[in-house]
Amino acid sequence: MIHPIPAGTRDVLPDEMRELRAIDERLRGTFEVAGYGEIWTPMVEYEEVLRAGDDNAADAAYRMFDDHGQVLALRSDMTIPIARVVATRFAVADEPLRLCYSAHAYRTVGRKTGQQAEFMQTGVELIGVPGEDGEAEVVTLTLSALENAGLARHRIGVGDGSLYRKLLAALDVPDDAHRELLDCLSRRDLVGLERRVDALGLARDARDLLVGLPERRGGPEVLDRPDGPAAEALARLRGLYEALEARGVGDRVILDLGLVRDLGYYTGAVFELYDPAVGFALGGGGRYDDLIGRFGEARPACGIALDVQRVHIAQAAEEEQR
Amino acid sequence: MIHPIPAGTRDVLPDEMRELRAIDERLRGTFEVAGYGEIWTPMVEYEEVLRAGDDNAADAAYRMFDDHGQVLALRSDMTIPIARVVATRFAVADEPLRLCYSAHAYRTVGRKTGQQAEFMQTGVELIGVPGEDGEAEVVTLTLSALENAGLARHRIGVGDGSLYRKLLAALDVPDDAHRELLDCLSRRDLVGLERRVDALGLARDARDLLVGLPERRGGPEVLDRPDGPAAEALARLRGLYEALEARGVGDRVILDLGLVRDLGYYTGAVFELYDPAVGFALGGGGRYDDLIGRFGEARPACGIALDVQRVHIAQAAEEEQR
Repeated sequence: MIHPIPAGTRDVLPDEMRELRAIDERLRGTFEVAGYGEIWTPMVEYEEVLRAGDDNAADAAYRMFDDHGQVLALRSDMTIPIARVVATRFAVADEPLRLCYSAHAYRTVGRKTGQQAEFMQTGVELIGVPGEDGEAEVVTLTLSALENAGLARHRIGVGDGSLYRKLLAALDVPDDAHRELLDCLSRRDLVGLERRVDALGLARDARDLLVGLPERRGGPEVLDRPDGPAAEALARLRGLYEALEARGVGDRVILDLGLVRDLGYYTGAVFELYDPAVGFALGGGGRYDDLIGRFGEARPACGIALDVQRVHIAQAAEEEQR
Repeated sequence: MIHPIPAGTRDVLPDEMRELRAIDERLRGTFEVAGYGEIWTPMVEYEEVLRAGDDNAADAAYRMFDDHGQVLALRSDMTIPIARVVATRFAVADEPLRLCYSAHAYRTVGRKTGQQAEFMQTGVELIGVPGEDGEAEVVTLTLSALENAGLARHRIGVGDGSLYRKLLAALDVPDDAHRELLDCLSRRDLVGLERRVDALGLARDARDLLVGLPERRGGPEVLDRPDGPAAEALARLRGLYEALEARGVGDRVILDLGLVRDLGYYTGAVFELYDPAVGFALGGGGRYDDLIGRFGEARPACGIALDVQRVHIAQAAEEEQR
């Protein structure tokens, strides 16, 4: 007898579960020692709550009806539910809020695509600390959590999630072309991006900036040129890089001007975690200063989520290569 | 701004979450030291898998469609998914299997009923150990897990989930009356039960057995009378009681001939955990020797699930009363 399970899900048997649990505990332990308190939100939310946070997140969610005909959805990340909680339950708190979580999130996938539908995520959210101070704290903490989980060679990609959108606006690229260009970028399809930018018939300088900027990836030298409409974002990234260097983790940073996370709520710095032993990101995050304001009073915030299963694979791959 | 969350769900903030996590770790730690390996199954299952396990479990589940129009459901307990895994992934294993879990389960509830929709459950399943040996192991382990989680006054109710159904059959009670009588019993409505039994116009002996048996609750003296068609079940319960006494936990056992768990897959002993400090059950379980056979080769099995939130409330209530 065959009893299938839904596309993108899997059963985890004890030998693997023990290791996943150990990694989760190391990550969460690091966060808690740093003053991040664990929070739990319901697996099921009203769809309009997810949609208030991000249309794409709501589109990607498993959806169902409650007995009053309202649409419920499985959370597709923890950041939007936590933004809801912060705005409704911590509305009077002025102090920075440090929260962490260890929870599953869900996104619908087609059959036989090989994509994951169920994610075991451990992560942090830092609320009320604006700018590079908040970002540097979250990045440094995540790097040390991964070290405690047994990784030695991990790196973090750092970019600016609003940079390319601002560039498109500043260079008067027609609104109806934005979506396609940003899609190329989030797929890392720089050839497709160049073809589409060329088709816009822009002035040479603008064309070169739109094509060349996303290719700049590496050490602090990628921030060197002033680059007109990108100058402000580049200056911010320089500040963040210096803060990370001061905290002793500069050698783990890959500045990446083409980095775009696909969730729509990021307003500044964005992050992606890598390990050279594997070919996929271990997690990511960024600054989302406008998200909490969609549920109540606005507060600056940033955070990172790690995929425990991917961290586990990276840790095993590092071990094999040692 | 108000951003409601679905009926029966709640946000858990760090102070409480820390305590729930500590209880979960104590319970799971006890299970793992005893050789029970943690397992994870997807939150989302095909509805027909849940329905193969138990119609009521499927009816109580949140349901949604996948992109091929098949019905998916949020698991309403962990026992049915684990039965699926055991039948499909451990089909060749002959040795006893000891599995534990720490996971959420979901049941739909009406608005404003005050019922929980989201349950944080930690539990065990013991597969391949039939009869009182298996039951005594699971009961003793659960009692010691609760002790490790900080409880001192907890008790376990022990009954037979098939006893009343067998009695109804043996006494030739018409099939169409069974549902109503069992519903009375699972609601502990012994007055309603008596009224309905009287209306059946049975012989005196049969009537007295159907009304009197569920009222018998206490020490081993409730097993003393032979009681015709109930004799076999009572002898089994006596064997289990003696095994529990031999393991030194007899004083924690409340024999309860009226105990019926509402899940339809129990075939023998059923359990319910209590603490005198609170007025609700902390969890329950029982023997389900037919369930795994619905997914593959039949294997005897029994298990218990604890509601972590309720254990937490009981532990706090005990502390207050000290």
